Amino acid sequence: MTQLGIVKRTIVRADKAAVDKLSGFGVATIHEAMGRVGLMKPYMRPIYTGAHVCGTAVTVLLHPGDNWMMHVVAEQVQAGDVVVAAVTSDNADGFFGDLLATSFRARGALGLVIDGGVRDIKDLSAMQFPVFSKAVHAKGTIKATLGSVNIPVVCAGVQVEPGDVVVADDDGVVVVPAARAQEVADAAAAREANEAEKRAKLAAGVLGLDMYNMRPALEKAGLKYID
Amino acid sequence: MTQLGIVKRTIVRADKAAVDKLSGFGVATIHEAMGRVGLMKPYMRPIYTGAHVCGTAVTVLLHPGDNWMMHVVAEQVQAGDVVVAAVTSDNADGFFGDLLATSFRARGALGLVIDGGVRDIKDLSAMQFPVFSKAVHAKGTIKATLGSVNIPVVCAGVQVEPGDVVVADDDGVVVVPAARAQEVADAAAAREANEAEKRAKLAAGVLGLDMYNMRPALEKAGLKYID
Amino acid sequence: MTQLGIVKRTIVRADKAAVDKLSGFGVATIHEAMGRVGLMKPYMRPIYTGAHVCGTAVTVLLHPGDNWMMHVVAEQVQAGDVVVAAVTSDNADGFFGDLLATSFRARGALGLVIDGGVRDIKDLSAMQFPVFSKAVHAKGTIKATLGSVNIPVVCAGVQVEPGDVVVADDDGVVVVPAARAQEVADAAAAREANEAEKRAKLAAGVLGLDMYNMRPALEKAGLKYID
Amino acid sequence: MTQLGIVKRTIVRADKAAVDKLSGFGVATIHEAMGRVGLMKPYMRPIYTGAHVCGTAVTVLLHPGDNWMMHVVAEQVQAGDVVVAAVTSDNADGFFGDLLATSFRARGALGLVIDGGVRDIKDLSAMQFPVFSKAVHAKGTIKATLGSVNIPVVCAGVQVEPGDVVVADDDGVVVVPAARAQEVADAAAAREANEAEKRAKLAAGVLGLDMYNMRPALEKAGLKYID
Amino acid sequence: MTQLGIVKRTIVRADKAAVDKLSGFGVATIHEAMGRVGLMKPYMRPIYTGAHVCGTAVTVLLHPGDNWMMHVVAEQVQAGDVVVAAVTSDNADGFFGDLLATSFRARGALGLVIDGGVRDIKDLSAMQFPVFSKAVHAKGTIKATLGSVNIPVVCAGVQVEPGDVVVADDDGVVVVPAARAQEVADAAAAREANEAEKRAKLAAGVLGLDMYNMRPALEKAGLKYID
Amino acid sequence: MTQLGIVKRTIVRADKAAVDKLSGFGVATIHEAMGRVGLMKPYMRPIYTGAHVCGTAVTVLLHPGDNWMMHVVAEQVQAGDVVVAAVTSDNADGFFGDLLATSFRARGALGLVIDGGVRDIKDLSAMQFPVFSKAVHAKGTIKATLGSVNIPVVCAGVQVEPGDVVVADDDGVVVVPAARAQEVADAAAAREANEAEKRAKLAAGVLGLDMYNMRPALEKAGLKYID
Repeated sequence: MTQLGIVKRTIVRADKAAVDKLSGFGVATIHEAMGRVGLMKPYMRPIYTGAHVCGTAVTVLLHPGDNWMMHVVAEQVQAGDVVVAAVTSDNADGFFGDLLATSFRARGALGLVIDGGVRDIKDLSAMQFPVFSKAVHAKGTIKATLGSVNIPVVCAGVQVEPGDVVVADDDGVVVVPAARAQEVADAAAAREANEAEKRAKLAAGVLGLDMYNMRPALEKAGLKYID
Repeated sequence: MTQLGIVKRTIVRADKAAVDKLSGFGVATIHEAMGRVGLMKPYMRPIYTGAHVCGTAVTVLLHPGDNWMMHVVAEQVQAGDVVVAAVTSDNADGFFGDLLATSFRARGALGLVIDGGVRDIKDLSAMQFPVFSKAVHAKGTIKATLGSVNIPVVCAGVQVEPGDVVVADDDGVVVVPAARAQEVADAAAAREANEAEKRAKLAAGVLGLDMYNMRPALEKAGLKYID
Repeated sequence: MTQLGIVKRTIVRADKAAVDKLSGFGVATIHEAMGRVGLMKPYMRPIYTGAHVCGTAVTVLLHPGDNWMMHVVAEQVQAGDVVVAAVTSDNADGFFGDLLATSFRARGALGLVIDGGVRDIKDLSAMQFPVFSKAVHAKGTIKATLGSVNIPVVCAGVQVEPGDVVVADDDGVVVVPAARAQEVADAAAAREANEAEKRAKLAAGVLGLDMYNMRPALEKAGLKYID
Repeated sequence: MTQLGIVKRTIVRADKAAVDKLSGFGVATIHEAMGRVGLMKPYMRPIYTGAHVCGTAVTVLLHPGDNWMMHVVAEQVQAGDVVVAAVTSDNADGFFGDLLATSFRARGALGLVIDGGVRDIKDLSAMQFPVFSKAVHAKGTIKATLGSVNIPVVCAGVQVEPGDVVVADDDGVVVVPAARAQEVADAAAAREANEAEKRAKLAAGVLGLDMYNMRPALEKAGLKYID
Repeated sequence: MTQLGIVKRTIVRADKAAVDKLSGFGVATIHEAMGRVGLMKPYMRPIYTGAHVCGTAVTVLLHPGDNWMMHVVAEQVQAGDVVVAAVTSDNADGFFGDLLATSFRARGALGLVIDGGVRDIKDLSAMQFPVFSKAVHAKGTIKATLGSVNIPVVCAGVQVEPGDVVVADDDGVVVVPAARAQEVADAAAAREANEAEKRAKLAAGVLGLDMYNMRPALEKAGLKYID
Repeated sequence: MTQLGIVKRTIVRADKAAVDKLSGFGVATIHEAMGRVGLMKPYMRPIYTGAHVCGTAVTVLLHPGDNWMMHVVAEQVQAGDVVVAAVTSDNADGFFGDLLATSFRARGALGLVIDGGVRDIKDLSAMQFPVFSKAVHAKGTIKATLGSVNIPVVCAGVQVEPGDVVVADDDGVVVVPAARAQEVADAAAAREANEAEKRAKLAAGVLGLDMYNMRPALEKAGLKYID
């Protein structure tokens, strides 16, 4: 339940081994392995090509134009965490820049996922600090209103619980509930093992129509070939 | 006429020599050479900087959230083709990834233009498989409903007939009707020949005002210089 | 006051020393140093990563689909200027390409900021001519209607007076009124001097909560820590 | 094929009886009766609630910020026509107002569908002249560049041929190819006849699950009911 | 946790008395009474002016272009419920029209909140069936893929649990967690009681500056009055 | 020059007689009479059909999520004013509702133009208090940060000086600089006088082609009529 003015210090993070295993897979694979749920909206983009992050979520709820709670969340970060920031209404202000990135990294944070704007893109890229955001904007923010830390938040269309696994790469951002981390990691591994063989066949010119045996279903659905 | 459930196997592709000639020009030049028509909407962007493709269109009409027909179109691809994918309503799901790219390439496809989303950006970029799309999204799709292959489609605001020439680069995507391919290629060549001289003059400090003799028209239109 | 059909030849440019000093700072720093005003909307993006420009504004007001005045403004450019182009209504046509860039550069222009579209991205990037625009679009424009040059314009949400300082980088575009150039440059320098020390502390693990002494204010606002 | 500077005077309009029959059905019904194709994008909205129009298309291709061809198309209008206006690039200027509406109506036009902006909303509403547009904008336009009349155009995502049937109401805009007008009208009638009975059953509390016999398919697909 | 293919039959609805009390307040008042959380994004709009609904949520998760689960959810509706429909990715297809509205009403549903498109606007308005949606679109949908019913969903940026109270009017849509219904209703009542007096004072010309005693804080913040 | 923390008490309002005269014309007419400048972006819409306002601007610059200055501006309102509110970055929060409207009206304000969100739509409509806004949103705002009152602001793309005339109706919002009020009012009157005659001719079936003598120019531009 969303409530303002709260910092939850104790959260249960997803199992580290499962997180490590998940870090070996891409966002598309994990999303499929989860049963096609958990993806953030496609407006969430990396600030530099090739950015990739996989870690446990510490969450923060911000107000438009106000990044006060970014300093509060920094204290709650542990090694291996990814900060997931939501905002109470749509706003592209620059809530985050290289100073906060320096602080987050010093505390062990692996990256940031924010449904808002960020700035200092050049520095953040030079630091190779992975950030996935809705916008880039130099606009500064104030420090006036309480949000919350480590409550469930909705970020870019996905409910994120503190401790969930967050994986992000060039394809977007996916959230794996902590309780499903191991199962999803295993399913992702199985899926990927399966893909190498498929890729080889397709590269050799075999059609998906045949490899997946689609022709009977297409015919039954009424597909007509004409010349 | 748009009709669902049809695969047209026989299409007339634009003349290969004309296509080859067109491949030497940029999208902006070709668009100008055509008389300023044929451009897709500017939301169509390459998935990696420097992507470029020029080939003959095989078309496919998809449904939102469903990429079944991508497998059907693969079979109709010939060497030198570019797949042009339209969707019956706005949808950014990831209709295409590295497996389909492997299959398309094996069949001779040079690239993809899709009014929808794609995924596996990292792999597609590594493959240097040129894709121009409306969005990047890891969202998976189902295989349930018939669309059509090689019917005329509207893709990102442009009517595309199977066999038309599709050219895409960092400036966007342009479609040249098959019947105009040679004429447009010639006009593009003429236009480009013309540009080198202009560029040299402008680089030397000559003003467009003088080079294009614009001053009389500006004066006639009433332009006033004040200090 | 916006008026069409006017070219103002004499404008007062910001002090060159102040402009030079401002060129050493990023957009975010300058925006903060100004008191958090002057930023263009975040849809203004560089056409290539790492583009940066700082110079004095010569302004031009265009009509949708018409770049006639781009040739008129070229004549008014002096060394160190940045062309700032506004359009009388939203339009993403390609008002600018490599020929105009060649001309602008020959006249001494350092870059372009345009609330519209541009094309020839590959060439402009190869030239390293910094352009910040709302869109990339190959669409050509006509030369039919008078706009104005060196009148005040609203570009991407900011009023720009001819002679103002325009600074743009990966974080966006900021406009410094000519009269404030020196003061803002000084404030930016002070701000940046101040940041190195902060960065070192944060990198050492000091929290912003402590460095900025935020805990009392957070407590007073009612922040509750729970386990 | 899109070509500028052309006015086609002779077009073949859809059969009048079929058009009359189609005028009795809503857009959603006709879209379904066509096999779920032919719909314009949902940003096309009526300028007043309850606007409805059904007629044969005369088409016009405009340039951004230029409504010259609106006067040219007026001459080609016959009683029962609907003007369908496309623009060569996205633009929301006010291409149409009460004077043109007066002229269009005097020539027999029943309404306007435009992928751009219109103005004089109060007057147009008072006249009950049905207009479906992308935007409302008071911005005036010039008369400088040739477009075309009665060529095929893409309007809001749909290819429209002169003479096609255009139907628009609160649900949007649908285009029926002239050759399919009678067939679609008949299918719409059949569909609607069928709906009265369904409505009565549903109103009596019968579930679609049972009326459409969906339970076996849902079970086969694996739907699980839990408490 | 989002899972596909599930229908939960037993849900705990918010207390009826609390829901009844909440039905007397507007969305803005309830949002304030909740502590400024719970609001859906402002793109959610009523299909007719003056639409208002307050009831308990039954939730449904749909796939783009597929309304199969709308029939499944109908069976789970009880008197006083509001159906809240989310979609697994952005899609504006017409998932709902007058037949489903007839069915929903027959089952006791008071209205629909859907992060997608709807159609049959004229009929729905005539029925005075309140619908709040992202879009109006005549586009039909298929019935092919399982979603879920009565699982937690994210709709237009808000997490909705089955049984929560949903209130919607011209100002938007707010979701009150079932456990907070009575408390929020009471707070809303207190807030509204308080407003009548304020309104009278303001109508008499008293300034908010004085009524809320803002002058000292403004002065402290440094506000300067100049002539 | 934009500066925060300032309230200018003395402003020079446009001549009352000119404002009264302007109040008799629509936005489109005034925009044309001004020489086609001064229009806000088309996303600015009335909250109820038929809303109309004409008055002198008092301006206010707000921060995202903060309506503190709305109370400050109320004190500066005089009879006949329209409040014009800009925000330092894009934000759709509900900065204004029926209480503020009551206060504004008591002070003599005729309406509000705001590049942000508003709420209490039902009450504002019942009060017939004309509001033109970017969005409707129930989201509440805080009172924490100083903006300014009666400084020049950019609102929805137009620079507005305190004292300028603001006219808004169903077609949008136009700003007339105070110094041009009389001239524009006269030009609007001349334009409108002219329109009655045109309307009569067009209603009688005369074509714009002939009434405006467009045929020679069209022929010269190369327009071809074909059958």
